[in-house]
Amino acid sequence: MSGDNKDRKNTGGRPLSRRGFLAGAGIGAGLGAAGAVGADRFLGPRDGEPAGDGDSQTVPFNGEHQSGITTAQQERMYFVALDVATDSRDELRDLLRTWTVMARRMSQGLEAEPDGSVGVDRNAVATDTGEAVGLRPARLTVTVGFGPSLFDDRFGLAAARPEELEDLPHFAGDQINEEISRGDLCIQACADDPQVAVHAARVLTKAGSGLVTVKWAQLGFGRTASTSITQGTPRNLFGFKDGTANLKNEYTNLINEHVWVHDGSWMDGGSYLCARRIRMLLENWDRQTRREQEEVFGRTKDEGAPIGREHEEDPMPFNEWHGTDGPLIPAHAHSRLASAPANDGARMLRRGYNFVGGVDEYGHLDAGLFFIAFVASPRDDFIAVQSNLSHHDNMNEFVRYESSAIFACPPGLVDDDDWWGRGLFERAT
Amino acid sequence: MSGDNKDRKNTGGRPLSRRGFLAGAGIGAGLGAAGAVGADRFLGPRDGEPAGDGDSQTVPFNGEHQSGITTAQQERMYFVALDVATDSRDELRDLLRTWTVMARRMSQGLEAEPDGSVGVDRNAVATDTGEAVGLRPARLTVTVGFGPSLFDDRFGLAAARPEELEDLPHFAGDQINEEISRGDLCIQACADDPQVAVHAARVLTKAGSGLVTVKWAQLGFGRTASTSITQGTPRNLFGFKDGTANLKNEYTNLINEHVWVHDGSWMDGGSYLCARRIRMLLENWDRQTRREQEEVFGRTKDEGAPIGREHEEDPMPFNEWHGTDGPLIPAHAHSRLASAPANDGARMLRRGYNFVGGVDEYGHLDAGLFFIAFVASPRDDFIAVQSNLSHHDNMNEFVRYESSAIFACPPGLVDDDDWWGRGLFERAT
Repeated sequence: MSGDNKDRKNTGGRPLSRRGFLAGAGIGAGLGAAGAVGADRFLGPRDGEPAGDGDSQTVPFNGEHQSGITTAQQERMYFVALDVATDSRDELRDLLRTWTVMARRMSQGLEAEPDGSVGVDRNAVATDTGEAVGLRPARLTVTVGFGPSLFDDRFGLAAARPEELEDLPHFAGDQINEEISRGDLCIQACADDPQVAVHAARVLTKAGSGLVTVKWAQLGFGRTASTSITQGTPRNLFGFKDGTANLKNEYTNLINEHVWVHDGSWMDGGSYLCARRIRMLLENWDRQTRREQEEVFGRTKDEGAPIGREHEEDPMPFNEWHGTDGPLIPAHAHSRLASAPANDGARMLRRGYNFVGGVDEYGHLDAGLFFIAFVASPRDDFIAVQSNLSHHDNMNEFVRYESSAIFACPPGLVDDDDWWGRGLFERAT
Repeated sequence: MSGDNKDRKNTGGRPLSRRGFLAGAGIGAGLGAAGAVGADRFLGPRDGEPAGDGDSQTVPFNGEHQSGITTAQQERMYFVALDVATDSRDELRDLLRTWTVMARRMSQGLEAEPDGSVGVDRNAVATDTGEAVGLRPARLTVTVGFGPSLFDDRFGLAAARPEELEDLPHFAGDQINEEISRGDLCIQACADDPQVAVHAARVLTKAGSGLVTVKWAQLGFGRTASTSITQGTPRNLFGFKDGTANLKNEYTNLINEHVWVHDGSWMDGGSYLCARRIRMLLENWDRQTRREQEEVFGRTKDEGAPIGREHEEDPMPFNEWHGTDGPLIPAHAHSRLASAPANDGARMLRRGYNFVGGVDEYGHLDAGLFFIAFVASPRDDFIAVQSNLSHHDNMNEFVRYESSAIFACPPGLVDDDDWWGRGLFERAT
């Protein structure tokens, strides 16, 4: 990977800090025994000390596809949907260029621009808000997407709108809050340190001050899927392992077929991001017996195995019966209805996160799953499945779909001069 | 430490899982290279592999004082304030006993009760909601406190109310939302893994179903203070190092004087928790020059050094002047007004967390600092300081105090038979 190496120093093979010039200075002082009491998010590990976690690592920014899609899923996420306030195509294009440069730097553990958090002098307003100074790169990825509304008549992009980029339909049972749905643009920032993710989205938003406004935002505190076979399957707030059957980045053929767009357009190599805020009605869920919960999922609670099987990885026995009592995996179990065989082979790359806020007027937790899926075809790989689920899923009694959004994430950045949307802006007239 | 060892197995010196009987089984399968891509939150590290972070560790539950106060501050927090719905003193007492037993187990990496997440059989409702099964202990602490309203006439506790346990006063500029303020009880769950913290508070809330209701809750995504000299000083969302002058658990004399109550009552060995949700007006802050920001804090943005000094640890030069331009540290700088010399020697143990939610009606981030301080005397160590700040602090232009709460946290658990509030319930009539 060729990166922006201006601030790089010889760090002895250790990851670069967000402030290269501070790495060797006093910022690590007082951290002597930090490793003994908690994850060392901060810089300055002693030589020879193992970093021990993903906080020290960077994810390549340039590539055929944007990072943050098949990247082994980070632990935390901050997602921001924005509306464009300017009507100037040139201002929007320049902002996307600026964002790309800044995100490229931040993903490598640098400030958004050189000396960005302190400004060129003490009397200047700084570009970088500074709260990630001293933190490790934490595998930050920043993924950008374009909503259907960006392709209205404001920016001359209407002719370039992909046919499949349209607002998701209303699904049965949806209780959508428009205030936290849709948007002209999205920024998905993922990292193993939440402060690094929040910082990245905030700095880009600040860079767009006057040009874009934040429509809604969502913090995800823990991943609920795995996008690599090297990761364990996490549990969602229902207490079940989530995403056992998810696509993994090692499944090259399936990823090519179901995640990446191949249409020869500016979206070639890109992917569609479908987002849904799914409130989980935990107080109701928590009153169900284990049997009832397992029949909702079609899997066991402890191992995450298919009902009637022992291991998480065992194939789902969709065609087996309990004598005459019905199928072993209930007809309306979530895992059956969401499966590829039940949906003409549809697959998606799920990349969702648990969230928790405060409480509602009944004292119930405002918590759940911020669902994100990346698909090559929203129609075939997402809408078909969600439509099926919306009518029949046993889980519907325990969830409430509160928001809905779709974004077209353009392909990756081919080199350090490339920027998000170049293909779109240079082709469309 | 004597713990509840019923589920313990020989784990070869490695930390116990939340499901002892799963530790040796298949749950670690598929994690082969997890260490290569991210923090390994999950169980089953290979023998000899360093854990590398605090996720694997436990904090002693029993002790002279509750854990979660001087404990080296964990990275994440979930805070829940509850109101008691029953009028029965016995039910309240029994709930506190149950909570203690459950929290003691969870702090050691166990489920809330044996086989708690799967229930005694498949047709039972489980006690433990299960989302922490397979996660490491992550230094979980659970700290419980009693609000002033618990000492009304419902439970016969009025005579036992400490004189200083009363609602915090209205401070100048406060814009308090009563819906996220006060409460009969609080649970502060801190851990290095947010899912572990959320789980603990949720399970205790579930155990109190019908007896308590959640009044408000707050997730903190990153610590903004250090409570041990072994920890680095983190940055708040203003991009500044926060809590340089905080009390550290190694300062035994100051901790004894300013954190622990010494009054011979049931609160002896306890501490008062003062909580304030401080919204930060980031969009406004981000438009200030570095000079203006530094003059608000009285410290430099990069190093966190006193203005005019080089190192974070340098003493504040409160008495130095810029020639005739005024004091080097501005008269109304936050660090001056909050300092011990400016407040008759008042000190507090700060243990706050950054938070971020969605956006408000103006598209501004609902983000800031969930401030928590532990003090021996709310009057002398907190109210006096906050009153001073509320009138004069340069920072007031950039913050909004949105909630306010105080809780009396009883002393620690002396042994495995002890429970939260035993001293209060057994003495008060």
